[in-house]
Amino acid sequence: MRRPVDLAKASRLLNHGPTVLVASAHGGRRDVMAAAWNMPLDFSPPKVAVVIDKSSYTRELVEASGEFVLAVPCAAQIEMVVGVGNSSGRELDKFARWQIATEPAARVGAPLIQGCLAWLECRIYPEPHNQQTYDLFLAEVVAAWAEDWAFRDGHWQDLAPPQRALHHLGGGNFLSTTGPLLRARG
Amino acid sequence: MRRPVDLAKASRLLNHGPTVLVASAHGGRRDVMAAAWNMPLDFSPPKVAVVIDKSSYTRELVEASGEFVLAVPCAAQIEMVVGVGNSSGRELDKFARWQIATEPAARVGAPLIQGCLAWLECRIYPEPHNQQTYDLFLAEVVAAWAEDWAFRDGHWQDLAPPQRALHHLGGGNFLSTTGPLLRARG
Repeated sequence: MRRPVDLAKASRLLNHGPTVLVASAHGGRRDVMAAAWNMPLDFSPPKVAVVIDKSSYTRELVEASGEFVLAVPCAAQIEMVVGVGNSSGRELDKFARWQIATEPAARVGAPLIQGCLAWLECRIYPEPHNQQTYDLFLAEVVAAWAEDWAFRDGHWQDLAPPQRALHHLGGGNFLSTTGPLLRARG
Repeated sequence: MRRPVDLAKASRLLNHGPTVLVASAHGGRRDVMAAAWNMPLDFSPPKVAVVIDKSSYTRELVEASGEFVLAVPCAAQIEMVVGVGNSSGRELDKFARWQIATEPAARVGAPLIQGCLAWLECRIYPEPHNQQTYDLFLAEVVAAWAEDWAFRDGHWQDLAPPQRALHHLGGGNFLSTTGPLLRARG
């Protein structure tokens, strides 16, 4: 079941470096793309950084709306993740093509992609120099969610292979993060 | 054996989201810290982004020198990674405390930490607003290296558990990325 994540723990949803989906909406249009180039940027308020290429339809909708949702997909969604990463929302309706179901977000207009592990609703900081020069978007996380079987009490749970996060090596090849949990002894 | 990585493939060293070490040096002083908050920023020239807190000794050396090396450590180095992440170079010599051996880099003054899987020699872009407001450093990768058994011909290899990259969940807990390699069917 999807439950709110304490904003103080929101950085942990991205801390291990998973590939995310970037969902956006503006004026009745919407898009979703994949983004391996993302990271947490701060704890409080939680902030994120993500690279969104100038050529993407997502870029247009994000700049117009000032908002996006980052969703953490899992291995079971690999076909969709690669598909939305290798196509353009200007040329096809990705939601129809990959039968992507969505739910409304709480605080932004961009949708929550169903089947993912976690979601971060984000509002961008207007930073035109970063956006123009580096395709870099910095944003505040204004709401966060996770499936309670995947992330609970501020911690990722031990997940079965189809539910594990995806880590893009490049060229359409992914690894997943797996246990056993590693800890330094001291 | 450590070999040069084609700069066009350098982004792949970080693409899967591993925790890195940030090594720095200036005026005979040096430091190393851990940084889960890093990502590739561009392919050509290769660029990276990394968050370096204002309170860190690394920050002082990076701002003074304009350079750093990102190194990708492996599971066998977890004690050192956590140790250099939880201590300050102002209070102890981390290199002595964790018996960290180094080699000189090719194009920057910061050292290459031995025992890691890969290294990116970086020169920062002067972006005082990002540095001050977000603790965010953007840099060009001017040289890259990898152990040839770990990353070869532009691809990460199938690694034994002690050689796998570390992905920090937060709170000193890590997962490692493991195969089997996942690919979309198409």
